[in-house]
Order: sequence, then C-alpha cells, then structure tokens
Amino acid sequence: MRVIDFRLRPPLKGFLDMIMYADAKRRDAATRRHGMEPAASAQAQSMELLLKEMDAAGVAIGVVLGRESGVYGSVSNRDVADIVQAYPGRFVGVGSIDPVNRRSAIRQIDEALGLGLKGINLEPGSYASPLYADDRRLYPIYAHCEDRQIPVVVMAGGSAGPDLSYTNPEHIDRVAGDFPDLRIALSHGAWPWVHQILHVAYRRPNLYLSPDQYLCNMPGMDDYIRAANGFLADRFLYGSSYPFIGVERYAAWFRQLPIKAELMERIMYRNAAVFLGLGE
Amino acid sequence: MRVIDFRLRPPLKGFLDMIMYADAKRRDAATRRHGMEPAASAQAQSMELLLKEMDAAGVAIGVVLGRESGVYGSVSNRDVADIVQAYPGRFVGVGSIDPVNRRSAIRQIDEALGLGLKGINLEPGSYASPLYADDRRLYPIYAHCEDRQIPVVVMAGGSAGPDLSYTNPEHIDRVAGDFPDLRIALSHGAWPWVHQILHVAYRRPNLYLSPDQYLCNMPGMDDYIRAANGFLADRFLYGSSYPFIGVERYAAWFRQLPIKAELMERIMYRNAAVFLGLGE
Amino acid sequence: MRVIDFRLRPPLKGFLDMIMYADAKRRDAATRRHGMEPAASAQAQSMELLLKEMDAAGVAIGVVLGRESGVYGSVSNRDVADIVQAYPGRFVGVGSIDPVNRRSAIRQIDEALGLGLKGINLEPGSYASPLYADDRRLYPIYAHCEDRQIPVVVMAGGSAGPDLSYTNPEHIDRVAGDFPDLRIALSHGAWPWVHQILHVAYRRPNLYLSPDQYLCNMPGMDDYIRAANGFLADRFLYGSSYPFIGVERYAAWFRQLPIKAELMERIMYRNAAVFLGLGE
Repeated sequence: MRVIDFRLRPPLKGFLDMIMYADAKRRDAATRRHGMEPAASAQAQSMELLLKEMDAAGVAIGVVLGRESGVYGSVSNRDVADIVQAYPGRFVGVGSIDPVNRRSAIRQIDEALGLGLKGINLEPGSYASPLYADDRRLYPIYAHCEDRQIPVVVMAGGSAGPDLSYTNPEHIDRVAGDFPDLRIALSHGAWPWVHQILHVAYRRPNLYLSPDQYLCNMPGMDDYIRAANGFLADRFLYGSSYPFIGVERYAAWFRQLPIKAELMERIMYRNAAVFLGLGE
Repeated sequence: MRVIDFRLRPPLKGFLDMIMYADAKRRDAATRRHGMEPAASAQAQSMELLLKEMDAAGVAIGVVLGRESGVYGSVSNRDVADIVQAYPGRFVGVGSIDPVNRRSAIRQIDEALGLGLKGINLEPGSYASPLYADDRRLYPIYAHCEDRQIPVVVMAGGSAGPDLSYTNPEHIDRVAGDFPDLRIALSHGAWPWVHQILHVAYRRPNLYLSPDQYLCNMPGMDDYIRAANGFLADRFLYGSSYPFIGVERYAAWFRQLPIKAELMERIMYRNAAVFLGLGE
Repeated sequence: MRVIDFRLRPPLKGFLDMIMYADAKRRDAATRRHGMEPAASAQAQSMELLLKEMDAAGVAIGVVLGRESGVYGSVSNRDVADIVQAYPGRFVGVGSIDPVNRRSAIRQIDEALGLGLKGINLEPGSYASPLYADDRRLYPIYAHCEDRQIPVVVMAGGSAGPDLSYTNPEHIDRVAGDFPDLRIALSHGAWPWVHQILHVAYRRPNLYLSPDQYLCNMPGMDDYIRAANGFLADRFLYGSSYPFIGVERYAAWFRQLPIKAELMERIMYRNAAVFLGLGE
C-alpha cells in the first residue's frame, strides 16, 4: 500500500536552520514526550537515511510545508520547490505567505503555484504578529484560494500561538462556514480541542484533519480514532510530523491502531491525494 | 419496561416542511454519519410504521418539541397540541416561542400551557437572530418559567448556532446558576463540549442532559456514559432524535451500552417523567 | 512507600467553620457523587481517626492549604502554621493571601514563609470579587513568587469561580508562559478542561497538576492517567481532597489505577517533594 505522509520536513535547505534540526536536544525531548525514540535520519540530518526510512515505511510521498513564521523560522517557496525537484516523485510541496499585506500575499500564492506547489500553508498564531484563524486580514486570502480551488493547510493545534485560545476551533469553524468551497486541512488536528474540532469536522464537509504527532500517545487519541472509523473516514489525514516523530516508527505505530482495515488506504493515501488534487 | 423518548418528531404537520423530512437525502446522510441506517418510517413518512417501531422499541411516550427557528423552520404550538390529541397517550408536547418580544413570548408560553403542553423549548443559537443561551433578552423568559415551575428545554449542542461558541457550556452554566429552581433539559447534551457540560451538570442540580443522537458512535460518548452511571443517573435523558436516528434502532443500540442495569428504568423513563412533571 | 497527599484539610481550626465540615450532609453528598463513601474521621471530625487513616494509607505527609475565600470561608496562615507545629512531620503548610492590595499581599507572603509555610495558595475565581488566573492584579504576586522561588498553588478547576470560564486553561497558560520560572501546581487539575490543561502542561514545564478528587470516577480520568504514564510523569501530583474523599479510600482506589508501577513513587511522593522544595 502506498502512503502519503502529510507532514514531513526533510533535513534540507531552510529546515536545517529551524529549531527542529538546529536544536536536536529540544527536538529529541519532544519526540520522547510522545513515548517515541528519535529517528536515526533526524539525528544524522541524512537524506539518504530518510529515504530508506520512507521506503521501509511504504511512504511514497512526503508533503513538504513551507513556513513563514515569526516564532519557528521560515522556509521559502523557492526552497520547497527545489526540494520537490531534487527528488522527483518523492515530495509534494505546499507554499507559505507573509499575510501582512494582502496584495503581496496573493502574489506569493500565485508564484508558489507557478513553482509547482500544490497548496498554501497558513500558520496564523505563529506569525510575528499572531493572528486568530478567523482574523479579517486573512479573509481576502481565503477568498482568493476558494475562488481558485487552491487547498489551504492551516496550523491550528499544538503550541500554535501565544496561548490556548489560538487553537480554539471556534475560529476555524467560522472560516470553514464562511468559505464552504475552500478545502482546509488542519495540521496538528486542533489538538487539544479534540471533541470540539471533531464536531466542527462533523459539521463542515470541507475540513480535513491531520492530528499527526498529537495522535501519538496523547490524551484524546481514542476519539480521533473513533471519528476516523466513522464520519471522518474520508477526511482524516496521515502525517508523522517528521522529524518530531520518525517516519518509520510512526508508520509502525499507526498500523497497529484500532482503525478498520478497509479504511487504511483511504486514510494513509487517498484522502491526502484528493485534498491536494493529485488524482486518486 | 416503559420508555419515554425525549426527542421524537413524527412525520406530521409542520415537521413535514422541515429539512428533516423535506430533504430526505440530507437526513439519511446525517443518519449514516452516526453509523446507523435510516428508519423505514422516516423514509416512508408513515405514522403507522412509526407507531409500530415505537411499540417494538418499548417507547410508550414520545416527547414532541415545537420549534420556532430561523434556520430549521417552525412547528406551531397548535400543531404540537394537535399531534398530542390525535394519538392519545403516545405523545407529550413541548411548546416554543419567538423570543424577540418578551411580552408576546410570555403570552405564547401561557397559551402553550393552556393547550396542554408540558414545557417550553428554546433554541437560542438557531433563532433568525442567533442568541447565546445567557443572552439578557432570554432572562425574563427564564424568570417567568422558574416562577411558575415550567420546565424548559434548551437546544445547545450539535450545530445549534452559527459557530461552536454558541454551544460552549459557560452560557448555560450561568443560566442554571442564576435560576437555581428552573428545571433545564439540554437537547444534544451540549455536544461536543462533553467534559465541560458534565462539570456543569455535576455542579448544577437543576440541569438534565439529553445527548440523544450525539451519544451515538460519537467522540466523547464514553464519558457521557460514565456520568450516567454515576452522578448524572437521575438527570440523564434518553432520546433518539428521530427521524435522524430510528426509534427502534436507537433503542436496540442504547440497551447494549455499558449502563448499569439497575439504572436503565430511571434513564429511559423516570428522569423524563420527573422533568416534565408527568408523575413517576 | 511514603506518600504525600497534596490536598488534605484536617478537622482543626478554621477548617471546622468551612462548609466541608460545618455542612456534613452537603459534603457527604459530594463524596457520594464520586462513588465513594464518607470517611469515618470526617464524619466524627476526629484527628485521632484521621491519623490512623493516614497511617493505613501510607500517607506520611499531608499538604494543608490555607484559604482566603469569599465563597468558601478562610483559614489563616497562623492556623495553618499551628496545625503544622501540633503534629510534627505529618503536615506541610501552604499559606494564602488577600489579593486586593498588592503590597499587603506581598507582606502576607513573606510572613507566611516566616511561619515556615512552603508556598502560597491562590484561588482567583473564589475571592469575594472573583478574578481570572491571568488577571493583571495577580501579576505582581506571581512576579514576587517567581523571583523568590516560592511555589504557588492555584485552584482552577471544579467549581472554582462563578462559571465555567474561570477554569478555562487559557488563563493559566498565559501565567505559566509569562512566568516561566514560577512553579505552579493546579488544584483540581483544571477539571473539566482535561484535554486543554494536558496540552498546557505538555507545553509549560513549570506546571504541575493535581486532579485530586476529579480523578475519582469522573469524565476525562482516563486521559489524566494517560498523561501521568507519559509526559506528565514528573509533574502529576497525588491528592485526596480530604475530607471530600477519605484519605484511605482514595489511596486504595488510586493504587488500582492503570498507572505504571515504576511511576507510583514519583507520583505519590517525589513530585510533591520537588515542587515544595522538601528535598527528595
């Protein structure tokens, strides 16, 4: 079975300057908080090892998300496109923007698509000036993407934002309701608001969830799985959050979860392919 | 064992104009999101079939809630009273109001009681102009009902309201605290705010919960059941949300939940009887 | 194995005037809502019985929290110090303050330390004029304690405050982030916001959790335990909330929870010792 890993940052380009690689001790501590051991490829910053781990895990494609973040550092759309081109067929890229000026943001979106990227990643709570996901300044950007059928990834979960209020799903609920034709994928699955985001996903058919690392031995994981086995089967996304969780270890762990066998291919491959418009 | 189904809308009168009957495809999709198959009676809009299903399920009495909703359509108090009279002993009616003008709302309440209805249904987030449950404009209505011992049903759960904030239990917590002698039943059990509403119910002895369809294969259901087996045993209400879940299928499903056998009669009958003042 | 019970109010001094002793009927009803039977020592208000129950439970030390509360009554720092001195080695005291005037509050803190108390207990939502935990008026107090390495206990869970919004963990998230060197222990573990507070604890290494009585047969308990077995192993605190739950019954109940055997000593003793600076 082919797998798309929806959140995978290889040890290349701008990613190496981010704390996920630059501060290995901090990253490995985060990995262990999930009860996992660090991946050899992450510790060695080795693409060769990573590709082996991807092969061993059956991960055909990794989704590489660009980032423009005041908190976590930035990876340019050019960097993401270069990674995609350097390893043909192994990565799909998603671009990022600076949301401050709506006109330049929309120019960045169109340039990203021109570079072959498949969608846009927004991290509202992590911008230099943090925003809620339903901040009015993001609405022209959502409108632009809805009108052109550009999927958006929104990071709204985990420690995304100065405090817990930034991940409260009432914000993304409004966005998904106000732009009903916009395909939205939530990185980190709005964790820890597990019950609340599952309601929003129940209600809003344009919302996809990628709980990724927060599925991994975290409170609430049973209810994410219950939804994956039910109403969310066509919108649950599989993602390791590599390098925070190893590609291979995450896959082994995921495959022993109580998810119905007949849904595994949808969840580990097809939903991401549909979301990104890759064809099934 | 006799059963009261606390949320049951028969295929009659104004209900037939609501999307729950008028848009069968949408309703059946909602049913299947809960892992259930549609009821034959709902699909055929047949009272004869519904009565057979009620008999098969042991449902002696269905609680028919009127509705005055900008979003979902309306069923007049006269309609509800007519249904109750047409099927003697099988239905108990609860009226509804238009909350905009407090004087006419109170007149509607008194008229509803005059028609033999047993309580008042409020759907704050679903009015043409949505309200939070603790909106000041509802306070004269709560006061009127508290003073006259009229039980109120409040829909605050599921998709009740423009966004997730409308079901946040902090609103109903204030109402239950400000009107300690008002009996309040929450339709949809404030789902998805499962932990939060269970705290409010733990704290406020005048609050009853009817998770109804959101108990059905939904995230959080285990904790509703834990509370039903514990501090909520005398205030947990049984309701199918028919036609969204079939009366017979819901009963079969409910009876195999891990609820203590000695509590089943309270939960499936007595709590609703006490709440509505029907006598035990 | 020695045990520190992080929340234990003996039947002495000002505690006897609080409703936890003065209204035995109300207290016993609360105990039974958790599926427990009242302790003999609580019903008899007997120190002799309590000490026997502590011995039987292996509780070497009980943490006695002073209180200055508009809602629940008050126990002075002098009272707490007297209790500690009357039973050498069996109790550790934590003082309280009146937060209204920052200068007198800081004087109270320093006096409490002079009396041998080991930290300061704040109950923001229960003051005569309720505060959120991140109210600006508390910030000079947090700053004073952070600068002097004084641990603070904050009651933000259960019915602490006029409504559910007072226990929303976004408030304590801001405090823990704004004072990263302040050791904070949350009484009642921010219940019912189980998923949310576990995220905050995941994110903020200076936060300790004491779910105490709300661990006991309450919704969400499974996820508290999951965290105790994982990232929270070094910051989970054991506390009975005596007299609401009996010291002996709580210990027996706790010991059969699915917590890893190798973590029990940390959770039942060492974490509290580290938090309070007692030495391991």
